[in-house]
Amino acid sequence: MLNFNFYNPTRILFGKGRLDSIDQMIPADAHVLITYGGGSAKKYGTLDKVKSVLGNRKVQEFGGIEPNPHYETLVKAAEIVRREGIDFLLAIGGGSVIDGTKFIALAASYSGEALDLLRYGFTPIGTDTVKTAIPIGTVLTLPATGSEMNCGGVISYEQGKYPVFSELVFPRFSVLDPALTYTLPKIQVANGVIDAFVHTTEQYITYPVDGRIQDRISEGILQTLIEIGETTIAEPENYDARANLVWSATLALNGLICAGVPQDWASHMIGHELTSLYGIDHGQTLAILLPSLLEIRREQKRAKLLQYAARVWNITEGSEDDRIHSAIQKTREFFERLGVRTRLSDYNIGEDQIPVIVGQLKAHGMTALSETQDLSLDISQKILENAL
Amino acid sequence: MLNFNFYNPTRILFGKGRLDSIDQMIPADAHVLITYGGGSAKKYGTLDKVKSVLGNRKVQEFGGIEPNPHYETLVKAAEIVRREGIDFLLAIGGGSVIDGTKFIALAASYSGEALDLLRYGFTPIGTDTVKTAIPIGTVLTLPATGSEMNCGGVISYEQGKYPVFSELVFPRFSVLDPALTYTLPKIQVANGVIDAFVHTTEQYITYPVDGRIQDRISEGILQTLIEIGETTIAEPENYDARANLVWSATLALNGLICAGVPQDWASHMIGHELTSLYGIDHGQTLAILLPSLLEIRREQKRAKLLQYAARVWNITEGSEDDRIHSAIQKTREFFERLGVRTRLSDYNIGEDQIPVIVGQLKAHGMTALSETQDLSLDISQKILENAL
Repeated sequence: MLNFNFYNPTRILFGKGRLDSIDQMIPADAHVLITYGGGSAKKYGTLDKVKSVLGNRKVQEFGGIEPNPHYETLVKAAEIVRREGIDFLLAIGGGSVIDGTKFIALAASYSGEALDLLRYGFTPIGTDTVKTAIPIGTVLTLPATGSEMNCGGVISYEQGKYPVFSELVFPRFSVLDPALTYTLPKIQVANGVIDAFVHTTEQYITYPVDGRIQDRISEGILQTLIEIGETTIAEPENYDARANLVWSATLALNGLICAGVPQDWASHMIGHELTSLYGIDHGQTLAILLPSLLEIRREQKRAKLLQYAARVWNITEGSEDDRIHSAIQKTREFFERLGVRTRLSDYNIGEDQIPVIVGQLKAHGMTALSETQDLSLDISQKILENAL
Repeated sequence: MLNFNFYNPTRILFGKGRLDSIDQMIPADAHVLITYGGGSAKKYGTLDKVKSVLGNRKVQEFGGIEPNPHYETLVKAAEIVRREGIDFLLAIGGGSVIDGTKFIALAASYSGEALDLLRYGFTPIGTDTVKTAIPIGTVLTLPATGSEMNCGGVISYEQGKYPVFSELVFPRFSVLDPALTYTLPKIQVANGVIDAFVHTTEQYITYPVDGRIQDRISEGILQTLIEIGETTIAEPENYDARANLVWSATLALNGLICAGVPQDWASHMIGHELTSLYGIDHGQTLAILLPSLLEIRREQKRAKLLQYAARVWNITEGSEDDRIHSAIQKTREFFERLGVRTRLSDYNIGEDQIPVIVGQLKAHGMTALSETQDLSLDISQKILENAL
């Protein structure tokens, strides 16, 4: 097992009818900015319910945070926070709204140019750079990214997506009421299942370090997602299925399963380029890339792929290569059964685009990806070709 | 899945050579009281190493916190904290030292009679009662109780053991270096494996509420303990085996696996009486009580016992009752293989003592135990008889 630090101070308020708890979580004299996305928070009444719970507090709203939240949008919100003296941010939404709100919280407190905050790439923002952030709470309406219980976000700027991390933006609390997610379109739920699934494989299908309990937890998340994935799409108001999706998605990226083990993240890095270039949903990019990447990287990942085959898919018969092939095939079929296509050609992306994608990877410095930092541009190209 | 709150702000510093991290975790001008137990922290050099890391900080020591820490001992320490103006407590030890240090942290900040803090039984101490506590850090030397990453403790007073909970006493940080536990006596390691195991079953072998991911994590902890239990006793310096024990024991009682599911704790409550009356180690009491309790409560726990049999012990053949019997038998055999006996008679406790034990349960109000609150004194008596 590798050495690790684990720290996660977010308070989770999970279950039915938990919105009322917000009243105790935000100071009575707070000046609150509620942030949200495209309007479903308003349309389905969550925004009104939250405002009602906030009672006499001074409340403003900032809607329109888009999927893959844009830097330009967020700096406008940060300007409002500064100008109006807002001292609490309450995000209602999924990963994009919460990621964006984290960036607003940092940018509003940062005296320099907000663009600096994107310059750090994978390096966590240290307290030298940003010393404070506006406190955040969240009301989750889309289970997928885990942003409700971690301190990271991904921000879009020009043709790139930039990770931003700071312990300052762990949400103070997150309300996870599975019933608030019933109104989601099926494709968003499917994308959420896949996002949580691939978050888990990024931290699990690497190489063994005898992190037994971490592996078991990862396998448990994957098994749970496989068990409830189709049900929660077909029966959105099946509370228990949705509750298991919500909590699994949170646990998939709250720092627990990566503690003490290697991490890959190449599917995410290549996927970000597909989203930036072609607007393909994040979950869809992962459904395209993971099966292809596992095929191309089967030697580096052999031991863990065999473990994945045996423990997650119960595949124990046949040669090693047969078992690995079956496990990857079952992964692909699972994604397809959720209604998400797994080939670039399904999204009208042909071979001619591969040099464009690889060019963007190069431009963004993605030349040595994966848990072993040897996934070069040539290998990214093979993964993309194999995904056609 | 049941509604739940989850909150755990303890920072974990896990792995080899992590003692140096303490320097960044404690204010440079802190006045520190190091608390420890019977002297092994001194004997094996951990105390000296910690003092060296603390550098120029003003440091005092309070040793002699006993197993099942006594109220009388702890109030003496609290008095020193107040008198000397100590503002940081650093516990070096296992569950008893850490539990005791939590009580010191509360008692030293509480203006009333410290005995009040025991009066609340299972009711968490609210901020109305205790508003502040001295901050705590821990260096774990005995993997077992999870106290290094939770906000509870059990304090002995006269013939009883009293739980104390407060969010104020979550450790600010805990150093979990598996190598610091190499010098433990084998029996303490065995007790630790059993303590972590039974912590997990208390939160898992209850009744089903479709908490799928919680169940998978619990099963993962149990499987890991079964895989590494004998190895880590036989080969104390096998780093990976010990690391898996340490992290599993922490995760078994940090609030994660109980989130959203029922909890039993009857084995613990009955076990506390065995410790108070006869001085039997906590882990030993659990090894005696769990198998017997599972046999007596097999109807209430039938569905989860079958799940436990299948997923943890891979028992899928035979009638339901046969599978349950086999799973309980395998549990007992596992404890015995660790070197811990599982019958009251192994500890020279005969049938004549059962009324005494039941009398103590009655005196302590333990008349409606378990996840269904219907485990009466009569049933406790049957469990004890069955454990002879």
